[in-house]
Amino acid sequence: MRALWLERGNLSLNDVPVPSRDGECLVRVVVSGICGTDLHMRRGYADFTGIPGHEFVGVVEHVSREEDRRWLGRRVVGDINVGCTLCRSCRAGVKEHCESREVLGIRGRHGAFAEFLSLPPANLHAVPEHLPDAVAVFTEPVAAGCRILEQVRIGPGQRAAVLGDGRMALLVAQVLVSSGASVTLLGKHGPRVSLAHTLGLDARLAPSNSLAPADRYDVVVEITGRADGLSKAIDCVRPLGTIVLKTTAHGTASLATWPIVVDEVTVVGSRCGPFEPALELLASGAVHTGPLVEGVFGLREFDRAFAAAEHGLKVLLQA
Amino acid sequence: MRALWLERGNLSLNDVPVPSRDGECLVRVVVSGICGTDLHMRRGYADFTGIPGHEFVGVVEHVSREEDRRWLGRRVVGDINVGCTLCRSCRAGVKEHCESREVLGIRGRHGAFAEFLSLPPANLHAVPEHLPDAVAVFTEPVAAGCRILEQVRIGPGQRAAVLGDGRMALLVAQVLVSSGASVTLLGKHGPRVSLAHTLGLDARLAPSNSLAPADRYDVVVEITGRADGLSKAIDCVRPLGTIVLKTTAHGTASLATWPIVVDEVTVVGSRCGPFEPALELLASGAVHTGPLVEGVFGLREFDRAFAAAEHGLKVLLQA
Repeated sequence: MRALWLERGNLSLNDVPVPSRDGECLVRVVVSGICGTDLHMRRGYADFTGIPGHEFVGVVEHVSREEDRRWLGRRVVGDINVGCTLCRSCRAGVKEHCESREVLGIRGRHGAFAEFLSLPPANLHAVPEHLPDAVAVFTEPVAAGCRILEQVRIGPGQRAAVLGDGRMALLVAQVLVSSGASVTLLGKHGPRVSLAHTLGLDARLAPSNSLAPADRYDVVVEITGRADGLSKAIDCVRPLGTIVLKTTAHGTASLATWPIVVDEVTVVGSRCGPFEPALELLASGAVHTGPLVEGVFGLREFDRAFAAAEHGLKVLLQA
Repeated sequence: MRALWLERGNLSLNDVPVPSRDGECLVRVVVSGICGTDLHMRRGYADFTGIPGHEFVGVVEHVSREEDRRWLGRRVVGDINVGCTLCRSCRAGVKEHCESREVLGIRGRHGAFAEFLSLPPANLHAVPEHLPDAVAVFTEPVAAGCRILEQVRIGPGQRAAVLGDGRMALLVAQVLVSSGASVTLLGKHGPRVSLAHTLGLDARLAPSNSLAPADRYDVVVEITGRADGLSKAIDCVRPLGTIVLKTTAHGTASLATWPIVVDEVTVVGSRCGPFEPALELLASGAVHTGPLVEGVFGLREFDRAFAAAEHGLKVLLQA
């Protein structure tokens, strides 16, 4: 099959064997999405070698166990973490923190920038019939937003800020709005702030200095994609407030931690989230994705596609 | 009265008026303790001018309201935060986060390195009769340890580490033991690790590298006094674990925040705590303080006292 292949930061279109794993389902990829992590990996910041890509919609074409036949022909999205099933984390139901986990297109497992991928049936989620492929492909990043609602008490009467104006920030801000909280997106780029308005969000340019005490937020979700994001978030959160960190980009930044202590702030790292609530938010229209699609490219146009993603919003790939 | 006076990092013994504040109690200071914050302030890191000192035991000598007469002659320790009583934080019962709060000997209010100090009666806590002054003077730092038990779920079956081997670390480790958790102090100095053993603690030298996954702790309490403490704590905490930050020393350090995200770690800033459980821990003998007392000095010997505190454990002052 045709697939993009990443090796030491070099991306190419290769012909590789169709994946085949015992006990798993073979999924024909209908559409996939390029995410910040993919761009980061292409810049050589991770030691992954293989097929990248972890946001996808596909159709199950083959199952290896009789009891999984119900998946055949189903349109699916897929949870990207595959645990060992045996360790303490896996037995506790948090395969996301299995030490020897594989992560689709990120760690130890070929991903979605290909004609086919393989995942265990437990990772699959059926896509509601009326949900278009180009919307359902956002399930994984929206799920990452839903993770915040599992971790942090957020709802009516609370003031939340999203720091950042990239793909994830524009999605997560909408997820937070669904909680009933008052949400403001604090962006760095005028056009992105305008786009946020198009999505129905309250949005403004981020202040360059610390916010005045009265203007600080109960919850600040940091999705800047920058190593100094925590420092900016500290400038915006109220005493006893909560900062949620989403940026996984590697790098270091200078930080003073004493304000976290003096103001007794809580900082919560947040990664992958639950797919079912994400599918519901997309199906109900609570999260809009249309204006986020920058373009759709074929796999062979990967160079143009990645260039567009570097400077734009969500770029989709089709095999 | 005689009092130490701090101004732009210079400490001197001065003759100043006895404090007198409407609605407050006048406390004759029997003994006070030098804390890391005091040393930090003397190095010029804060803009406090006045009488420093916030750890004390005293006797109430005068009350300004008839209804507070029951405090007269009582031996007391005192909560160091005085809120405005009117703002949202004060009305919510968290005067510790009142924006215009005064903090005894730290911010806007003269402190305990003097013959007398003034505090509102609401801040006072009676010292149990059999508790010696030289033990009760540890109530404030032990309360800061008790704050952790209010913020973080910690108890039997959990593995906790305390990073640091200073005064606070040696006290907080004992507080954590009282929760039923398995507690290890990770120190940097052999003699301090030995002292921790004397106190009945499990203690060892901190590893220079990240701990292996299986050795990581559920809860890591960072009390290193150093700006890079968070970075060290990240190296010791398990995925989905909790780091409690205690270091308020100003300064910055280079930090990579992405491991907080990938491992979904929670970081909790922790400052002042409740006095009653601290008095109970001291009264029951659950927290030992004897080996922590480095020496007792008169106010006029402040230079020797501060020098001893810079290099040692708890130094006490007597007017």
